[in-house]
Amino acid sequence: MKPVRVGLVGLGTVGTGTVKVLLRNADEISRRAGRQIIPTIAAVKDTSKKRDIGNADLIITADPMEVANHPDIDVIVELMGGTELANQIIMKAIENGKHIVSANKALIAIHGNEIFSAAHSNNVIVAFEAAVAGGIPVIKAIREGLAANRIEWLAGIINGTGNFILTSMESLQSNFGDVLTQAQELGYAEADPTFDVEGIDAAHKLTILASIAFGIPLQFDKVYTEGITQLNYDDIVNADDLGYRIKHLGLAKRTTSGIELRVHPTLIPKQRLIANVNGVMNAIMVHGDAVGSSMYYGPGAGSEPTASSVVADLIDVVRTFTTDHENRVPHLAFQPDRLSDIPILPISEIQCAYYLNMKAANKPGVLADVTRILGDQGISIEAIEQKRTDTDTQLADVIILTNKTKEAFMLDALDQLNQLPSVVDQIKRIRVEYFN
Amino acid sequence: MKPVRVGLVGLGTVGTGTVKVLLRNADEISRRAGRQIIPTIAAVKDTSKKRDIGNADLIITADPMEVANHPDIDVIVELMGGTELANQIIMKAIENGKHIVSANKALIAIHGNEIFSAAHSNNVIVAFEAAVAGGIPVIKAIREGLAANRIEWLAGIINGTGNFILTSMESLQSNFGDVLTQAQELGYAEADPTFDVEGIDAAHKLTILASIAFGIPLQFDKVYTEGITQLNYDDIVNADDLGYRIKHLGLAKRTTSGIELRVHPTLIPKQRLIANVNGVMNAIMVHGDAVGSSMYYGPGAGSEPTASSVVADLIDVVRTFTTDHENRVPHLAFQPDRLSDIPILPISEIQCAYYLNMKAANKPGVLADVTRILGDQGISIEAIEQKRTDTDTQLADVIILTNKTKEAFMLDALDQLNQLPSVVDQIKRIRVEYFN
Repeated sequence: MKPVRVGLVGLGTVGTGTVKVLLRNADEISRRAGRQIIPTIAAVKDTSKKRDIGNADLIITADPMEVANHPDIDVIVELMGGTELANQIIMKAIENGKHIVSANKALIAIHGNEIFSAAHSNNVIVAFEAAVAGGIPVIKAIREGLAANRIEWLAGIINGTGNFILTSMESLQSNFGDVLTQAQELGYAEADPTFDVEGIDAAHKLTILASIAFGIPLQFDKVYTEGITQLNYDDIVNADDLGYRIKHLGLAKRTTSGIELRVHPTLIPKQRLIANVNGVMNAIMVHGDAVGSSMYYGPGAGSEPTASSVVADLIDVVRTFTTDHENRVPHLAFQPDRLSDIPILPISEIQCAYYLNMKAANKPGVLADVTRILGDQGISIEAIEQKRTDTDTQLADVIILTNKTKEAFMLDALDQLNQLPSVVDQIKRIRVEYFN
Repeated sequence: MKPVRVGLVGLGTVGTGTVKVLLRNADEISRRAGRQIIPTIAAVKDTSKKRDIGNADLIITADPMEVANHPDIDVIVELMGGTELANQIIMKAIENGKHIVSANKALIAIHGNEIFSAAHSNNVIVAFEAAVAGGIPVIKAIREGLAANRIEWLAGIINGTGNFILTSMESLQSNFGDVLTQAQELGYAEADPTFDVEGIDAAHKLTILASIAFGIPLQFDKVYTEGITQLNYDDIVNADDLGYRIKHLGLAKRTTSGIELRVHPTLIPKQRLIANVNGVMNAIMVHGDAVGSSMYYGPGAGSEPTASSVVADLIDVVRTFTTDHENRVPHLAFQPDRLSDIPILPISEIQCAYYLNMKAANKPGVLADVTRILGDQGISIEAIEQKRTDTDTQLADVIILTNKTKEAFMLDALDQLNQLPSVVDQIKRIRVEYFN
């Protein structure tokens, strides 16, 4: 079969990884795909920079539109990042009838609906496995492997930097700030870590996962996002004492009233496999009505792991050259005219259990006040523990695990609890999920 | 699009699960596949038996060939088990131009090469996701999701019965025999448990996984297979003391001299995620040169988990109706004319670390003899521990962890060790894998 020529837009970490994998595994790939896949042109910001791409015979250009318009190129691999210029280039390439492979989670989460609509009209494919969880083929698993299921929920550690920081806080017995500095020195966190530690990157990925799991349009602006910057080592110790680990999860759940979409720190029972996913690794649990619970684990970032997904997408795409449109796997797993408008719930309507940590005066009646306020909101207590009374201040740490309740009730209770004269500082509240 | 009509051969646990999932999730499935998939006819052994298939409008026949020959049927779902009759029916259906979905691991492992060859000639697809690890889409992950990689090795807990027994031995502090009886009473083990506990079922699955990972023909007869029947609770305790768990693994590794294909009990460091996969759950680690290590976890058996994979295959198959042949994903992941003849190594040529447990007289010189014999074979010792000297017999348990060596050297050493006058009973030898 005729070789397929690929144009890259961006030749950074993932771009060079993609070229290296295509070259090193050229034989393995052509044995699978039945044809060669040849990187042919790449657009880069700085054409003078030396790049680690072996002896790849690549045309290098500073103009990304040259790639989008190049007549010999069948598929564009977009690895430049950012949303606006990337969107323009992809829309142009689609207009030119070129297929797209992208690792750009922000782009797909924010502009995906328009991009897929244009791709549908122009009879091309936009593949984006590398946009979620790096090398883990979780998009394929949900979209095709679990296609028999009504997906009930999914929950993932989908930001490696955040998981590295949480794991290091535990192993180094340190607070968030100290570990972040170290992660930045090691190159695991960016100079501006906002996207990772505030959960924005995870929210981009969750948007995509939820869409293909439930058959809903991409709705990034409806994801509730809470970062890990407020966590400290005490929280990890308290959780451990109760039999839990804290992970920064992206969660998407189907409920009778709508869909919950939320990214936040979460207590998970230690015996759950996902509670034992450490360092920069990612893992996504997916629960379907037929399969039950399944999990997909692997490296969520990095040059060649991400390239692994980019190249897998390339192989998928070149296989569909002769497929007619209606027989392709739909971009968002469900046929574009069969997406559902199930509402996304506001965070006040979600339901889960809670961990509370309050500093309170160690005197009679305090616990009675606390339990009364929770009881008045219909919130029952799973466990309560008073620990570490400071001999100077006579303040005690009170740790409470509640049963499942609606977030609105918890917020009302927290308002009242924070107003108790015996409660000092803001009460720390972390959500709890059991996955059973 | 025109609905697709499916004929089932076999309507037992997985067959009824498949019909139930197709009916219950009909809307979800047609939203994904763009057409309806309708179970239409089923061949069963006993036509008078009542089955839990809701209000499915199924023609029931006692003649499986009626399904294979039925003119209205596009795809045959083979769920009857066994290898000979199943093979005849599938070959007939292929001859009739029908696509096949099968959950029959023994059939694929033993007759797969001929079946795929016939399918290729007749331009039909044989899909078999459900044949390995039940509901986990691991065939798809390896064949498509990791298609960019040169797969280096894979290792899986791919028999739920065996893993349930090993997990129960640990939690109940019991030996193999007692737990087996209990598993049989609970319905987790067959009356004749040979296929599960001797590793034959796992060897069928490993044959399939190795073939799609490395691009080699199916070679079931070359798999080394060792069961779990010789394990006892002491082994689990000894392993635990050293920081390991024992799992019954299927392993396929690419080495410079050939491919290792082996099923046997294995010590794995406790901190590895796969060491924490318990009960009837399955998990497969796959290591590729680009992605690194990834893992796929979920229920490895059961009615609806297996049906989840059967129906996912059906959706894949109906999507390819209009694909030309050369653009389909090859049955064994690699193009049929590009399979490799890398040799499968005999067990004597494999390399791994070993755990040894010997009962020896607690007197001077014994350990010197033992270490000398190992040293003469070039086997170095990672850890050695003498424990539990029996006050009556003056016999001590000596536990040794070796470094990696060739199995042939270990067998020579074991011959000599077993001949030492101070060593009583046969020495217990379990292989060790680190996965780092």
